[in-house]
Amino acid sequence: MGSLADQQPGSAVRPAILDKFSAVRQASVDLCQTLTVEDQVVQSMPDASPTKWHLAHTTWFFEKFILRPYFDGYRPLNEKYDYLFNSYYYTVGHMHSRAQRGLLSRPVVSEVLDYREYINQHVFELLESQPGADEIRLRLEVGINHEQQHQELMLTDIKHVLAQNPLHPTFSEALCEPTPEPEPIAFLEFQGGIREIGHASDGFCFDNELPRHRVYVEPFFLGSRPVTNSEYLEFIADGGYEKPQLWLSDGWALVSQENHHRPLYWSEELDQEFSLSGLVPLDRNAPVTHVSYYEADAYARWACARLPTETEWELAADDCPLSGNFADSQRLHPGGSSLATNEHGGLQQMFGDVWEWTASPYTPYPGFRSLAGSLGEYNGKFMCSQFVLRGGSCVTPAGHVRPSYRNFFYPAQRWQFTGIRLARGL
Amino acid sequence: MGSLADQQPGSAVRPAILDKFSAVRQASVDLCQTLTVEDQVVQSMPDASPTKWHLAHTTWFFEKFILRPYFDGYRPLNEKYDYLFNSYYYTVGHMHSRAQRGLLSRPVVSEVLDYREYINQHVFELLESQPGADEIRLRLEVGINHEQQHQELMLTDIKHVLAQNPLHPTFSEALCEPTPEPEPIAFLEFQGGIREIGHASDGFCFDNELPRHRVYVEPFFLGSRPVTNSEYLEFIADGGYEKPQLWLSDGWALVSQENHHRPLYWSEELDQEFSLSGLVPLDRNAPVTHVSYYEADAYARWACARLPTETEWELAADDCPLSGNFADSQRLHPGGSSLATNEHGGLQQMFGDVWEWTASPYTPYPGFRSLAGSLGEYNGKFMCSQFVLRGGSCVTPAGHVRPSYRNFFYPAQRWQFTGIRLARGL
Amino acid sequence: MGSLADQQPGSAVRPAILDKFSAVRQASVDLCQTLTVEDQVVQSMPDASPTKWHLAHTTWFFEKFILRPYFDGYRPLNEKYDYLFNSYYYTVGHMHSRAQRGLLSRPVVSEVLDYREYINQHVFELLESQPGADEIRLRLEVGINHEQQHQELMLTDIKHVLAQNPLHPTFSEALCEPTPEPEPIAFLEFQGGIREIGHASDGFCFDNELPRHRVYVEPFFLGSRPVTNSEYLEFIADGGYEKPQLWLSDGWALVSQENHHRPLYWSEELDQEFSLSGLVPLDRNAPVTHVSYYEADAYARWACARLPTETEWELAADDCPLSGNFADSQRLHPGGSSLATNEHGGLQQMFGDVWEWTASPYTPYPGFRSLAGSLGEYNGKFMCSQFVLRGGSCVTPAGHVRPSYRNFFYPAQRWQFTGIRLARGL
Amino acid sequence: MGSLADQQPGSAVRPAILDKFSAVRQASVDLCQTLTVEDQVVQSMPDASPTKWHLAHTTWFFEKFILRPYFDGYRPLNEKYDYLFNSYYYTVGHMHSRAQRGLLSRPVVSEVLDYREYINQHVFELLESQPGADEIRLRLEVGINHEQQHQELMLTDIKHVLAQNPLHPTFSEALCEPTPEPEPIAFLEFQGGIREIGHASDGFCFDNELPRHRVYVEPFFLGSRPVTNSEYLEFIADGGYEKPQLWLSDGWALVSQENHHRPLYWSEELDQEFSLSGLVPLDRNAPVTHVSYYEADAYARWACARLPTETEWELAADDCPLSGNFADSQRLHPGGSSLATNEHGGLQQMFGDVWEWTASPYTPYPGFRSLAGSLGEYNGKFMCSQFVLRGGSCVTPAGHVRPSYRNFFYPAQRWQFTGIRLARGL
Repeated sequence: MGSLADQQPGSAVRPAILDKFSAVRQASVDLCQTLTVEDQVVQSMPDASPTKWHLAHTTWFFEKFILRPYFDGYRPLNEKYDYLFNSYYYTVGHMHSRAQRGLLSRPVVSEVLDYREYINQHVFELLESQPGADEIRLRLEVGINHEQQHQELMLTDIKHVLAQNPLHPTFSEALCEPTPEPEPIAFLEFQGGIREIGHASDGFCFDNELPRHRVYVEPFFLGSRPVTNSEYLEFIADGGYEKPQLWLSDGWALVSQENHHRPLYWSEELDQEFSLSGLVPLDRNAPVTHVSYYEADAYARWACARLPTETEWELAADDCPLSGNFADSQRLHPGGSSLATNEHGGLQQMFGDVWEWTASPYTPYPGFRSLAGSLGEYNGKFMCSQFVLRGGSCVTPAGHVRPSYRNFFYPAQRWQFTGIRLARGL
Repeated sequence: MGSLADQQPGSAVRPAILDKFSAVRQASVDLCQTLTVEDQVVQSMPDASPTKWHLAHTTWFFEKFILRPYFDGYRPLNEKYDYLFNSYYYTVGHMHSRAQRGLLSRPVVSEVLDYREYINQHVFELLESQPGADEIRLRLEVGINHEQQHQELMLTDIKHVLAQNPLHPTFSEALCEPTPEPEPIAFLEFQGGIREIGHASDGFCFDNELPRHRVYVEPFFLGSRPVTNSEYLEFIADGGYEKPQLWLSDGWALVSQENHHRPLYWSEELDQEFSLSGLVPLDRNAPVTHVSYYEADAYARWACARLPTETEWELAADDCPLSGNFADSQRLHPGGSSLATNEHGGLQQMFGDVWEWTASPYTPYPGFRSLAGSLGEYNGKFMCSQFVLRGGSCVTPAGHVRPSYRNFFYPAQRWQFTGIRLARGL
Repeated sequence: MGSLADQQPGSAVRPAILDKFSAVRQASVDLCQTLTVEDQVVQSMPDASPTKWHLAHTTWFFEKFILRPYFDGYRPLNEKYDYLFNSYYYTVGHMHSRAQRGLLSRPVVSEVLDYREYINQHVFELLESQPGADEIRLRLEVGINHEQQHQELMLTDIKHVLAQNPLHPTFSEALCEPTPEPEPIAFLEFQGGIREIGHASDGFCFDNELPRHRVYVEPFFLGSRPVTNSEYLEFIADGGYEKPQLWLSDGWALVSQENHHRPLYWSEELDQEFSLSGLVPLDRNAPVTHVSYYEADAYARWACARLPTETEWELAADDCPLSGNFADSQRLHPGGSSLATNEHGGLQQMFGDVWEWTASPYTPYPGFRSLAGSLGEYNGKFMCSQFVLRGGSCVTPAGHVRPSYRNFFYPAQRWQFTGIRLARGL
Repeated sequence: MGSLADQQPGSAVRPAILDKFSAVRQASVDLCQTLTVEDQVVQSMPDASPTKWHLAHTTWFFEKFILRPYFDGYRPLNEKYDYLFNSYYYTVGHMHSRAQRGLLSRPVVSEVLDYREYINQHVFELLESQPGADEIRLRLEVGINHEQQHQELMLTDIKHVLAQNPLHPTFSEALCEPTPEPEPIAFLEFQGGIREIGHASDGFCFDNELPRHRVYVEPFFLGSRPVTNSEYLEFIADGGYEKPQLWLSDGWALVSQENHHRPLYWSEELDQEFSLSGLVPLDRNAPVTHVSYYEADAYARWACARLPTETEWELAADDCPLSGNFADSQRLHPGGSSLATNEHGGLQQMFGDVWEWTASPYTPYPGFRSLAGSLGEYNGKFMCSQFVLRGGSCVTPAGHVRPSYRNFFYPAQRWQFTGIRLARGL
């Protein structure tokens, strides 16, 4: 975990981190403005959670890891919330089954909002009384970043809920801006040799981005931009989903069994897709999204390329500006004008739009150490059978990602805004 | 289907049936008074449906079977409701999957209430313009009875939802009245011979109660009252759940696999049960409820008795008064003072309290004919692998049952208010 | 259980029942003549068992219920066989899981044959020393009939095994005799009134055929012969599998989910079927077989008829001769010339050819009592969710069935030689 | 694929490779000497295959990839074998479902042996007529190595079959030699820096061992020998299976769901294990085996260590002699005296005994290229979600492994002879 840039030991005034805390806590509530109470209850699959669960769980995180250990005489609002809103921290107690989060009608949405308020007040009180406590401030920073991650999940999960509904409800205003036609993908060359990856600056990072360490990498080429819907349509038209030689064995088993023939959310006619603005015409110039690792890998093989490793990606991204089509742009969909404004050294859209599958299984960096105590369950225990994704997406809060940021999902998962960037060896 | 008692051909005034329609339609909405919006969205298992689905489906029934065929120029409020709220009428179109009713956040509860109002208005309009149309009035009567059945399901389904929740939410006021200790079960003798069963009067009945027909029955004994919790506890204490010789083969497989050791909703310590008033002490004198057919059958074998056939039950019940502990008593739980007020010829609690499993598989009566057209899917197609239950329960609307009324469930199902009455041969 | 006709108390010579024992025991071994060792190991689904398991289990039955309790100083060949070859007698001990019978390569076939011989010798020794012991002789008769039932299962199970194999292996010689075209089905009238059903003679019967008892039955018509393949093809051609209104709800769910479009073992082109003689042209005049109860019921509805109740069937069959196309004819397939030789009072093929699904759920007769002790698990505990079939099939040993014989299977099961006879009310 | 050392273009005499072919082909048949025909039919789980399937599939491999393309006028023995014995080569046709290999009683074992002979003869004939054909000889080498891999699987699969059987059958003679107590594990230091891994010599290797390539590695320590049963017992005694903080998230889910509390094949009392010599006392000094990746990883964390990467393992193993406890020693179980005779530079048992789980997900080396054509399905398509294991086991044919050899299994799999070697950073 990086040191905290804004840390000012002994400060007597309200710590700056509380402003960030306030802003992020409010942002979660604001995200629900267009949602009905009913929308916030439903769990559409075990991987996704109800909105109100996200609102409560992010709150529980502050209660569990800050208030309970550090707030003298803290009295919980409801003891059972400790069980209901623990996600996967086995070392701190039992928890309600993940797959059954959608069976809980209570606490109701308004009670969850009360819970949020109750915790917010206590956090303020604690921080104002102990502004210089390093461990508290570190945990607060983790909690804030944790809540930003859940803001992204709130959007991907509610998209999945609404997509199940034949009424095609919308979350936000209709998309009005089509994506301009991009240049063809250029393969940009990068040097090899001994390099370093991993978080380097003073700012916050998660434990899985550390330690910064040396790697040996061969020279490589990276595609200048993500693969578009139009390009992916060519793969489909060429029988990509019917050619076993393009697929990993597990991927072929999955598409055969689940009858996958197109990205998640595309209409059978391949001309529409379900978005957070409802069913919209497929934007052919926008980056393809909601593809599994298997689809990304098969596409790359078809295109006589491969997916980049996370090392290659990070080295290439290292000095790209952190701008892009993030959640704050309110598009909540890849594409739009993001391409034009998001270019550096020939690379476009490295940040925002779509999380880019890398060829790298999610493993610990050499010398990796989990956070101490139960927060050690945050990242390390997931370092198995998942793949690293990089760069953030159109539903990631702006400012949340960085070049060294490692997201990770199982290769079969498609409900995140996942996309494809190609790479090649020499 | 029996003829309609209140039918007055050519009547110029508002038909009496509309009063019943109004009352029953309002009763469904009234049932939700203590429910939050969140409660009405959740589906806790495939067998149960969300409250708002019940509110919408019962409405769809009138729209589909009355307004669409008989209301000239009828314009539906939302064409997609036809798909969303069809339950199992395959002959009138496709339908949303039953197991996925809980994935639908929309239409929201208030939209469902608007839908109800829209349909109510149209039914009124239609009936006032065609007061004497027999087929319409017949279908209206079916729809009213159908809605009463769903009122019972709304209660059993919401009980199941609330029971999943570690917060133990309550639906209604706490039960205050304990059940007085009953007399021991007496076995009352009934004559055999050629008898008749099936609906006989002019009033409404479902098609599965017809035709009235002759049966041959041996003399038999029927238990004077349902088995109590106290008596069922003795069965448990005697190792009832561990003795394979007491169980049907399928039942033994079920209890072994699902680890059943007590009725659904009982606490592990056998001293509390979850009720619509939350977690309450087990009322030892109340009829045992939420038992499967297998449990009822095993208990009977343990008690050196058997379950009655539906013929036996109906012959015994034939002149019992239709009073008892029904939903209108607001107890919503078996027991209380119902016993005292619900006696006839030595038989107690034949109606209300708990649905009594009979030993009779649900099959068509000799000469059975389904209702014509798609309404024929109402009952007949379920006449396989289910068992008949008789007498109504504490969540059945008063006035809905009668001696010839045949309810039916699969032998493994336990979330209804099912109970046990014993019988014996000579 | 009926009294034993051949019982001669005090007889000093070898009891006649031992001849039957010898013959039936030998017949099981003879059945395997054309099978390879490999064939006898495989279990193709949980419902079916490997041949060598049948050979061993029928042997265990004599060991468990006769030798262990009655043979002084009996020493088992292998103590673990008691666990391995118990089928479902929970009251006498634990058992190897049914679905995993195909995982047992040991004991090998020759060891099973040794086990058979060992038990045979001991049974002979016991019976010759105690020729007049009624209970032993009764159990021996049960064991003999039990083994005959398993002879039928050996044939239906090995058919299922061979049918899985793309090499289309054959069990017996090719069928050479086509079935002559039958007369159209005539509906023969039978009188109603108070009648009696259930086993009546002195001969052996199973406990489920007793007690003989009175029933009331309305006058009815019974089809003169089973439905043929040709007639069933018309049902298919008329879209029978696509019309939900013809099907029970559970049946419609099954055919939709399992994609059933024809009887088990028919080729997709509807012109061939897999038989114990391999893949053969569909014999259009032979009785249709390997249909589920749901298919039988749907066919009957399509034909404006219904299935007979078991009462109707037994009353009609009561004085038909017990001849027909049984296993002993070596055809091992319905049809052939059986029709010509198997007629009585207008009724054809009541016995042999195909087990006829009745509309009657398998329930106990009024006053039914299971056999005492663990043999009580033989029949009674299965009286739930299954349907009664009557008349025996082309793989039933001749002499094993009788008018009162009740076979039973779950409505979804199709691997037995099941068929359809129609009935109608007046 | 490496070049072939024994390749002699234009040789007029019988090529040396045919001797190896003969020897390996015979070795597969010899492996079955102690098996009954029945043993060779059973499939105990989808991951494992019947012995006779292995015998046939390895034969099909030569037929499919050598005889069909290169033998002019080749006539197959049975066309359907092409379907039955294809394992997973989708690009050359459809195949019998893997999970249903145990349903095939035919071809019988003797027919499979005939098939083997038929193919052997044709291969000889082809090779003797075209001794210098490089592509044929390359494919022959692949086929020989492929068959050796299946020899190992034959042993692991039959062990699984026999382990299901309550009769505890044995495959080979009883183990007589206990393992001497080893020295405590020493952690040996290895230098870091830029190094090379991947196959380097002229001999045969699989495509997944290439290309040899540069890597950067930090200095590391490697455990001197595998973890023993005795050491693993301490982990169990310390509650290793009950502490979530020791486990990867997927691993914790698995052990919770499957109730894992010890290695596969250990008795509940932890004092016996099922071996190919039947149930034997647990040999406390032998390397622990039949553990999942999750168990290996949890053990390492408990031991304040980690698993080595495959790079670390290969660098350490590079100059170790290729001796060890392989299948040819006939022990077919880890341990024995192997330790004493299998040491180099402080490292013991790097080869043989148990496959050592590495921390490395199975991914392509930089610049990896699959074999051309359908043989490209051999390795590359499995490079996802599996982990690399190194070093061979007590059931690997001697001479089959090498330092660069990469085996791979899913992290949950336990039926292979998998074990644990620890590593540490500085």
